[in-house]
Amino acid sequence: MKMQTLAIVAAGLMATTVQAEPIQIIEPAVITEPEKVELGKKLFFEPRLSKSGFLSCNSCHNLSLGGVDALPTSIGHNWQEGPINSPTVLNAKYMLAQFWDGRAADLKEQAAGPIENPKEMALPHDVALEVLRTIPAYQDEFAAVFGDQGITMDTVTDAIAAFEETLVTPNSRFDQYLAGDKNAITEVELEGYELFKANACSACHNGPAVGGTSFQKMGLVKEYITDNPELGRYNVTGKESDKNVFKVPTLRNIELTYPYFHDGSVWDLTEAVKVMQEVQLGLPLSDEEAEKIAIFLKTLTGDQPQITLPILPPSNPNTPRPAPFK
Amino acid sequence: MKMQTLAIVAAGLMATTVQAEPIQIIEPAVITEPEKVELGKKLFFEPRLSKSGFLSCNSCHNLSLGGVDALPTSIGHNWQEGPINSPTVLNAKYMLAQFWDGRAADLKEQAAGPIENPKEMALPHDVALEVLRTIPAYQDEFAAVFGDQGITMDTVTDAIAAFEETLVTPNSRFDQYLAGDKNAITEVELEGYELFKANACSACHNGPAVGGTSFQKMGLVKEYITDNPELGRYNVTGKESDKNVFKVPTLRNIELTYPYFHDGSVWDLTEAVKVMQEVQLGLPLSDEEAEKIAIFLKTLTGDQPQITLPILPPSNPNTPRPAPFK
Ligand code: HEC
Ligand code: HEC
Ligand code: HEC
Ligand code: HEC
Ligand SMILES: [Ca+2]
Ligand SMILES: [Ca+2]
Repeated sequence: MKMQTLAIVAAGLMATTVQAEPIQIIEPAVITEPEKVELGKKLFFEPRLSKSGFLSCNSCHNLSLGGVDALPTSIGHNWQEGPINSPTVLNAKYMLAQFWDGRAADLKEQAAGPIENPKEMALPHDVALEVLRTIPAYQDEFAAVFGDQGITMDTVTDAIAAFEETLVTPNSRFDQYLAGDKNAITEVELEGYELFKANACSACHNGPAVGGTSFQKMGLVKEYITDNPELGRYNVTGKESDKNVFKVPTLRNIELTYPYFHDGSVWDLTEAVKVMQEVQLGLPLSDEEAEKIAIFLKTLTGDQPQITLPILPPSNPNTPRPAPFK
Repeated sequence: MKMQTLAIVAAGLMATTVQAEPIQIIEPAVITEPEKVELGKKLFFEPRLSKSGFLSCNSCHNLSLGGVDALPTSIGHNWQEGPINSPTVLNAKYMLAQFWDGRAADLKEQAAGPIENPKEMALPHDVALEVLRTIPAYQDEFAAVFGDQGITMDTVTDAIAAFEETLVTPNSRFDQYLAGDKNAITEVELEGYELFKANACSACHNGPAVGGTSFQKMGLVKEYITDNPELGRYNVTGKESDKNVFKVPTLRNIELTYPYFHDGSVWDLTEAVKVMQEVQLGLPLSDEEAEKIAIFLKTLTGDQPQITLPILPPSNPNTPRPAPFK
């Protein structure tokens, strides 16, 4: 039944948008506040925002690896095993909300979470602020960007979010195709794209990020079997119907953001496509078709942000020290 | 007695090199094999060279932090506490040998150690090579750089060493001073330098890296008290006289490479200067003099390498998977 509903929705979508593509081009970042972005980049790479002095945002959202850690679930403070797969920070600004369950409204709200989270960076906010406040170079940079506001969680997360806003991946071969270069993708890739639309994948995976536009049940037509106890959107709404509902992830750079699903259980993209087909759509899909869709999905890998590694200003005797083994 | 010997050596040094400075200018890196360096950079940032898929060389030699982790001792696989302070990779090419005890002759020999070390990256070499060999982009890059040699520990460590050779920090204010710009350092900084020479610090800390030219006993004139059981050079030679003998560390970028000493026990540079004076020289040094030497030492912070974060090629279904929690 659910399947039928979806099929109808999808059919409707296709009927009303005959010429329009479900996927939109990603535009390169336009940086209006370069100093804020630069400060945010430092904070994104700042291990002193963790109790151990060892973990930064980039540890779990490694910008060398498509903005993920490429692990099923993350390694946090004291090597604790995290509860859920780390989603990419690339193109995260296009998400309707942040986290798998959407519990943070936007990037700024999100950024406060991991610093204090005892399973992630495990550093109380007051200590994090004290670290930054004792370092003259940070004082100067915050003053230059935020004036009198100084160094607060509000300005810290504002700067991190400003940096993350720049983490877009334009110019994928598929974007070139959308922009009119019909030779930018091969015939097989185009076939994969046609299958992606015909099978209604694009009913959920759409918009510039090819995802991130809605929350959807994982296991719409068939239960998704997993050891992972996370319940998704239910955490936020408490509604029975929101159990196992997750934010639809972006498929941009999907070639880089393995392993797949909120439990990080599937490593092979073709396999992930088949799981989707089975649990979300229930329609038969041959190995060859699944393979073609996967081949198409790899055209969504865009230009990765070119990051010059920030040089972080040194601590001094007043700076709170890391406590990795306490 | 030891003290007197040293004083004589130092006096001799100064007498015979009247005009010559004990510290030499660091030259910028000249890159003759850019493709090898680029490949080495990828490997330096490659977490898949660790069992967990989480730790890379850059985890413990963070190029945002002066090439160190800024911890007393390192965090290795499974959050194991390391035995000794992580030395900087910056200017490491100037060291007469690698590691505190000099057990590796050069950077290439050194680089094989941490990958397999169960307390560091904990990945057997055959698995590390398998990871790289299953990734077509690495195959191509190794072929381009090493031709028929392929992907072996020999070529892996050769590439990493080639990258590390570029990690020099020229153009410090002190280098500008040495090059003839007498205004590049302040009067107090110059006084600190004079004290550094007059107190015979430069008998041990000399050469372009201001260290790394010899092994010396830690606690030459007075025992150095530490909880750390490492014995240094004795590990290599087995000679009683080599107990507590360590490679003299570089003082380049010393402002960034806290905490100090092989046990990482001292966080404050002025304090470290005082410890040196006490245990290596035994001569009295006022707080003000120690402070001046520390102020001089901060002129040794050079231009940090500008690193564009490498984009690492993705794994595929054939690539051995990380095992962070096994
Ligand atoms: C220890 C690993 C770890 C660290 C450190 C970490 N994250 Fe995350 N991050 C995760 C995981 C896991 C999730 C998913 C959590 C969830 O959805 O419940 C996540 C989610 C996110 C998201 C939401 C993306 C989306 O599409 O929903 C953003 C943005 C993000 N993190 C940014 C950051 C920033 C900024 C920092 C540093 C201040 C940071 N992370 C530190 C593991 C980490
Ligand atoms: C009804 C909505 C819906 C439909 C239809 C749908 N998906 Fe998904 N997709 C999701 C949701 C929700 C997730 C996240 C599920 C989870 O991780 O628990 C997801 C995850 C994925 C992932 C893994 C992404 C990642 O980073 O973990 C891939 C790949 C994927 N979908 C591809 C497809 C393809 C291909 C199709 C069509 C054959 C498709 N999806 C159809 C909602 C949908
Ligand atoms: C888990 C932390 C950790 C990791 C990962 C790590 N190192 Fe080290 N490194 C250390 C420590 C600690 C030492 C000092 C060990 C000793 O002297 O006995 C060291 C020593 C060195 C030295 C010697 C410097 C000197 O002056 O003596 C070099 C060079 C070096 N590492 C490069 C690397 C490279 C290249 C990699 C990756 C292949 C790497 N390290 C991975 C912690 C680490
Ligand atoms: C006899 C040789 C010798 C003399 C003289 C000497 N040092 Fe050292 N220095 C060493 C050795 C060896 C170490 C490493 C000791 C250890 O970590 O166990 C060291 C370490 C240091 C460190 C810490 C470096 C780091 O990265 O951990 C500083 C700073 C330093 N010396 C400064 C000085 C100053 C200033 C003087 C003069 C007042 C001086 N040294 C005199 C041999 C010497
Ligand atoms: Ca993933
Ligand atoms: Ca140190």
